[in-house]
Amino acid sequence: MAYIKVPEGLPGIVGPMAFRPETAKHLNNLAEELLRSDNSLSRGFRELMATYVSYLNDCFFCQNAHGGLAQHYLQCDINYIDSIKKNYLDSDLTDKEKALLEIAASVQKSGKNVSAGQIEKARKLGSTDIEIHDTVLIAAAFCMFNRYVDGLNTWAPEDRNFYVKRAKSRAEEGYANFVPNH
Amino acid sequence: MAYIKVPEGLPGIVGPMAFRPETAKHLNNLAEELLRSDNSLSRGFRELMATYVSYLNDCFFCQNAHGGLAQHYLQCDINYIDSIKKNYLDSDLTDKEKALLEIAASVQKSGKNVSAGQIEKARKLGSTDIEIHDTVLIAAAFCMFNRYVDGLNTWAPEDRNFYVKRAKSRAEEGYANFVPNH
Repeated sequence: MAYIKVPEGLPGIVGPMAFRPETAKHLNNLAEELLRSDNSLSRGFRELMATYVSYLNDCFFCQNAHGGLAQHYLQCDINYIDSIKKNYLDSDLTDKEKALLEIAASVQKSGKNVSAGQIEKARKLGSTDIEIHDTVLIAAAFCMFNRYVDGLNTWAPEDRNFYVKRAKSRAEEGYANFVPNH
Repeated sequence: MAYIKVPEGLPGIVGPMAFRPETAKHLNNLAEELLRSDNSLSRGFRELMATYVSYLNDCFFCQNAHGGLAQHYLQCDINYIDSIKKNYLDSDLTDKEKALLEIAASVQKSGKNVSAGQIEKARKLGSTDIEIHDTVLIAAAFCMFNRYVDGLNTWAPEDRNFYVKRAKSRAEEGYANFVPNH
């Protein structure tokens, strides 16, 4: 049970967002810009980065909610998402995508963990400044979202299919227009 | 030197914000709501929480920028802010404020680090649900801001007086109306 009185039955971050719409608005606008706006990184890959960082932070709700969206956009199955979490180096992601995931994994530990060598490698593989910027900020933002969800001890459905089933409608709805009360 | 081409001479987070105004807008709106909007926690105490979490994350820019603002609002000197960072338990903060800082320190490590006992203690000392919510989200947000600033290897003035001197005008300007390009 959540540490504060959030409306019952709302999964993960949705409870605290319904409790505090004043901050939810800005969190959702940030997610919309980072994960859905026009970008040379696909929506699927950005959701995959969010999923991977949430996995590293051991946040069940976020890694499944965003894993469901990554699966929806990438048209893959849950085993593919799980294999990326466990060992993205052996996946069919491009070398550039792997270099960006390496940066995201460093950010998850600490900003200071990102090295000039990691940036250089990503750049040589074709990453732009905006892609590097967005990778760092997406990873940093999920260090916030994960802590928000788990720090308030929110409830989340245990059935992983719940997240797969809702992904299509969540993708259509987007973040910016999301109304937490329903 | 920052890992991406941000305008020169802009301190800390201001460089990446000028580089990417699309995300800066939402980050600043979130900071405005969390640190400056009407709240039973004073602006000074909220900036102090931001400072303390930034100190735990070893982010030089954020702990000095927000330390300067805390000092400005609390009308204290830099030694007081430093003493809080080093040992807030021995400070003149109220027991309720100390209980909230303890929650913030747990969030800095991981959301899962916050215990029911810590929440119970804060509540017994008079904390409301909104105060507990905002403490968790402020601490989580600074785990994002700190990683954003350091993950991009931004430049920051080493002279701590720089941050003290700019605090008054930054307090007057606020976050939501902040224009990173000047």
